[in-house]
Amino acid sequence: MAKTNPGRFFEDYTIGQVIAHAVPRTVSGGERALYHALYPARHALYSSDEFAHVCGLPASPLDDMAAFHIVFGKSVPDISLNAVANLGYAEARWLRPVYAGDTLRAQSEVIGLKENSSGKTGVVYVRTTGFNQHDLPVMEFVRWVMVRKRDTAAPAPAAHVPQTAAVVDPADLVIPAGLDFSHYDFTLAGEPHRWGDYAIGEQIDHVDGVTIEEAEHMMATRLWQNTSKTHFDATPRADGKRLIYGGHVISMARALSFNGLANAQMIVAINAGSHANPCFAGDTVRAWSEVLDRADTPAPGVGALRLRLVATSGGEPFTLRGEDGRYLPHVLLDLDYWVLMPI
Amino acid sequence: MAKTNPGRFFEDYTIGQVIAHAVPRTVSGGERALYHALYPARHALYSSDEFAHVCGLPASPLDDMAAFHIVFGKSVPDISLNAVANLGYAEARWLRPVYAGDTLRAQSEVIGLKENSSGKTGVVYVRTTGFNQHDLPVMEFVRWVMVRKRDTAAPAPAAHVPQTAAVVDPADLVIPAGLDFSHYDFTLAGEPHRWGDYAIGEQIDHVDGVTIEEAEHMMATRLWQNTSKTHFDATPRADGKRLIYGGHVISMARALSFNGLANAQMIVAINAGSHANPCFAGDTVRAWSEVLDRADTPAPGVGALRLRLVATSGGEPFTLRGEDGRYLPHVLLDLDYWVLMPI
Amino acid sequence: MAKTNPGRFFEDYTIGQVIAHAVPRTVSGGERALYHALYPARHALYSSDEFAHVCGLPASPLDDMAAFHIVFGKSVPDISLNAVANLGYAEARWLRPVYAGDTLRAQSEVIGLKENSSGKTGVVYVRTTGFNQHDLPVMEFVRWVMVRKRDTAAPAPAAHVPQTAAVVDPADLVIPAGLDFSHYDFTLAGEPHRWGDYAIGEQIDHVDGVTIEEAEHMMATRLWQNTSKTHFDATPRADGKRLIYGGHVISMARALSFNGLANAQMIVAINAGSHANPCFAGDTVRAWSEVLDRADTPAPGVGALRLRLVATSGGEPFTLRGEDGRYLPHVLLDLDYWVLMPI
Repeated sequence: MAKTNPGRFFEDYTIGQVIAHAVPRTVSGGERALYHALYPARHALYSSDEFAHVCGLPASPLDDMAAFHIVFGKSVPDISLNAVANLGYAEARWLRPVYAGDTLRAQSEVIGLKENSSGKTGVVYVRTTGFNQHDLPVMEFVRWVMVRKRDTAAPAPAAHVPQTAAVVDPADLVIPAGLDFSHYDFTLAGEPHRWGDYAIGEQIDHVDGVTIEEAEHMMATRLWQNTSKTHFDATPRADGKRLIYGGHVISMARALSFNGLANAQMIVAINAGSHANPCFAGDTVRAWSEVLDRADTPAPGVGALRLRLVATSGGEPFTLRGEDGRYLPHVLLDLDYWVLMPI
Repeated sequence: MAKTNPGRFFEDYTIGQVIAHAVPRTVSGGERALYHALYPARHALYSSDEFAHVCGLPASPLDDMAAFHIVFGKSVPDISLNAVANLGYAEARWLRPVYAGDTLRAQSEVIGLKENSSGKTGVVYVRTTGFNQHDLPVMEFVRWVMVRKRDTAAPAPAAHVPQTAAVVDPADLVIPAGLDFSHYDFTLAGEPHRWGDYAIGEQIDHVDGVTIEEAEHMMATRLWQNTSKTHFDATPRADGKRLIYGGHVISMARALSFNGLANAQMIVAINAGSHANPCFAGDTVRAWSEVLDRADTPAPGVGALRLRLVATSGGEPFTLRGEDGRYLPHVLLDLDYWVLMPI
Repeated sequence: MAKTNPGRFFEDYTIGQVIAHAVPRTVSGGERALYHALYPARHALYSSDEFAHVCGLPASPLDDMAAFHIVFGKSVPDISLNAVANLGYAEARWLRPVYAGDTLRAQSEVIGLKENSSGKTGVVYVRTTGFNQHDLPVMEFVRWVMVRKRDTAAPAPAAHVPQTAAVVDPADLVIPAGLDFSHYDFTLAGEPHRWGDYAIGEQIDHVDGVTIEEAEHMMATRLWQNTSKTHFDATPRADGKRLIYGGHVISMARALSFNGLANAQMIVAINAGSHANPCFAGDTVRAWSEVLDRADTPAPGVGALRLRLVATSGGEPFTLRGEDGRYLPHVLLDLDYWVLMPI
C-alpha cells in the first residue's frame, strides 16, 4: 500500500466526523519577522510590544492573518488536497490572540455534504478550529470546498447544507481579554482616523501596489505548512507559473490597507470571502476598501467596523462586478470582515 | 477627505518642527536570522552571543545597518514619500546597540529648508533619531531630500542650510558601554588583520559578487517597513523592474566587505553617503574599500577606522569618478563611515 | 599583502592539522521559521515544542539539516573555497540536538591527502565537527574535496586515504538523551506508518514537486553563512544561473519525503552522499526513497531506519543509474542516511 497521502475523496467524509489535523506548530519572533518581510504589514499592534501593552495586551500578538494561515494550512492535507475549488468562507472568528511561544494545532468537523448533480464531485462543508497548547481555541472558520469522488458510482450521501450566518453578529465578536483602546496613541499608529470617522458606504483607495514574485508567495505558503502542490510545482502549467495561495492575496491586501485604515488593528471575524480570480507572479496587487457597517463593543475605547476589502491586479478601484453580476477579471479577492478600531 | 497618506510637501515643513514617526517595532531573533538570509553577513559580533560576551556586550546586537534601516524606514512616510531625490547623509551616529526584545521608534527634526530656483521643489534637511523602549536614543542621522511643492505659487521660506560636519570627529564617536576588544578572538572572527595593519590610503577589493533578485530586495525593504512604492510596484517602468532601496545596497556592500575587513566589527558613524547610480534586480553587486583615516578610542583594545565603501555593478575596482568628476556609471554607492576594530 | 581570503590550496594541508573555522553563530526561532519558509518541512518534532516534550526533549530542536548546513558553511572558507569538486561524505553523525539560544562553531581535522596524477590537484579528506557553546560536539562528518595546487611543482605529500565506514554501524548512532517515542502521537505527526511498517527494499515516491527560484536558494545558503561564490554570482555563466548549494537540494528532498515518511523524525547519520548532477533555478525537485536497512536502538519506542533519498528534476521515480553505471542526468542527489522512527 502506498504510504503517501492520497488525500480524502468526497465519499470519505461523513456529517459530524471530526478530523484532527497533523503537524502542530510553535511560533516565535521568527514568524513575526517573516510576516513583515513578506507583506508590507505596519499595523502597530502587531509590530510593537510596547504598543500592545498600552492596548492592554501582554505582548504584540502574531498577526491575525498569520494565525489564520497556520490553522488553514494544517487543514489542507485532510480537506482540500483533492479539492477542485475553494468555494467560500463563513463565520470565521478569532477567539484568542497567539503569542510567541504558543503551539497551534487544528481540527475540522464536517458540518455539511452535498453531491453535485454531475455525480463526479461534491461539496464538503467543514468548521475548522485552531487550538493553542492549553487546548483553548484561538480561531475558527467554516469553509466549503468542491472535492472529487474516488468512485463516481458511490451512492450520494443525504444532502445537508449547513446554515451559516451571512454576517457574524457583532454580539458574537470575541474581544481579546484586556483589550483597551482608551490610551491608544494615534501618532504611533500612523493615522488620526478614529472609528467614528468612518461612514457606512465610504470607499478608500489604498493607492500602493506590490508586484508579486514566485519566491515570495512560495516562502509564505510554506511558512504556513500549506502543502497544496499547485502553489509550488511549475510543471503542470505551460507558462511555468504557480497558482498563488489565496491567503497570500488576503495578507497582501490587508497589509496594503494600512494606508487609510492604519487604526483597523485587529481582525476579529471574516464574514465571507471569494477568491474571485486567480493570482500569479508578476501581478501587481492593489486594494480598496468599503465601510459596510459599524458596531459598538463592550471593550473600553473599542469599536467594530465591518469592511469589504477588495484586492485587484489592474483595473479601476471601486469596480467589482460586471453587468452579468460576475466579478470583473481584475478582481482577485472580495473579503467581508470585522475589525476592531479605537473609537 | 481622503484618509490615505498623501505625504508631506515642501510647504509642510518648518524649521524646528519635530515629527514623531509611526509604527514602533519590536525586534527579535527573527530580524537577525532574516538579515543573515538576505545579506552575506558574517561579522562575528552580530552572529554570536558568545563572541559578543567576550567583547563585553550582553548579547549579539541587531546588525548596525538593520537598526539604521528600521529608523530610516519609519521616517519615509513623513519625510521622503514625495521626495524626488535622496540627496545625502551626514552625522550618522550609532548611540546604543539594539538587542532582541527592544522596541524602536523614531522622530525627525527639520533642521534646514531651501527652495530650489525652479520654484517647484525644495530641499528639506532633517535630523532623524531612533529611540528604544526606554526612550534612549539608539542612533541619529542627518539626511536631506528634494521634495515637491504642493503649490508652486506658495512663498519660499527663508533659506537655511544647516552646517553639518564633513566627517564625524573621532571624539564624538559613541563606543557602546562595556565594549572591550582585549580578549578578541581573531580566529573566530575570521581574519588576523588588526586595526594597526590598515594603512591610510590602502585599498581592498572584496572580490565576491552577489546577483540581486527582486524577491530579496523587496523582502528586505518590507522588513524595515519602508513604504516607498518605487521599491515594490513594477508597473511604472516598462521593464518591470523596481528601484532597489539604497540601504539594501549599503547592507550588501558592507556584508561583502567582510572579506578583507572581517574585524571591522561595529559601524559607529556614517560621515557621508551617495547612491551614485540606481541599482536594479539582475545587477551583480561587488565592493571595494579604501582606508581614509584612523583614530584611537578610549575603549580597551578598540581602534576606529574611517573607510570608504564603494559598491559597484560591473566596472573595475578602485575606479570611482570620470574626468568630469561625476561618478562612473557602474558605481552604485560611495559611503564614508567609521568602524570599530581590535587594535 | 592582500587582506582578502585566497582560500587554502592543496599544499596548505597536512595530515593531523586542525583548522578552527570562523564566525560562530547563535541560533533562534528565526532560523527555525526561515527553515520552514524555505523548505516544505513538516516533521512534527521540528515544528512543535509540545510534540518534542512528549518525545522526551526539552524543546523542538533546530532541524537536523539546518545544524548540518551551519557547520558545513563554517568549513567552506577553509576547506572548499578552491575546491574543484565536492567528492563525497561519510560518517556524518548527529551527536546532540541544537536548540534556540545555542551558539555553534566548527573545526576540521585533515585526515587524508592524495595528490592526483595530473599534479595539478589533490584530494583533501577532513573530519569536520560542530560544537555548541559548552564545547560539546553537536555533529561531525567526513568529507573529501578536490583542491587545486597553488604551485604544480610543489612536491606531493605521502598519499594517505583514510578508512571510513561505508555505513555507520547502528551501534554507533547517537540517540539524543531522553528521546522516547513510547507516547508518540501518530495523528499529530501526520501518518500512521511505524518503523515496523517499512520493509527493506520498499520504495516510496514522495509525489510532490517544488520548482526552485534563485532568491530562495541564495537566502538559504546565506543563512548558513556559506560563502562559496558560485551560489551567488551569476556573472560567470552565460545563462545567468547560479549553481545551487548541494545542501539546499538535500533539505528540499528531505522535506518532500515527509509525504510517506512523516515519522522518520530525526536524522542521526549520513552514510554517504553524492550530488549526482548540478541543480539550477527553474528545476522542479522531486524525491523518492528506498528502505535500505533497519536496526534497533536502546531508546524506548525508537527504531532506526536506513534510507536512500534520491532527489530528481524530471525523469521517472526509482531510476538512478544508466547501463554504464553512471547517475542518470535527472538525478540530483543520492543520499544514504539513518533516521529515528517510532516502532
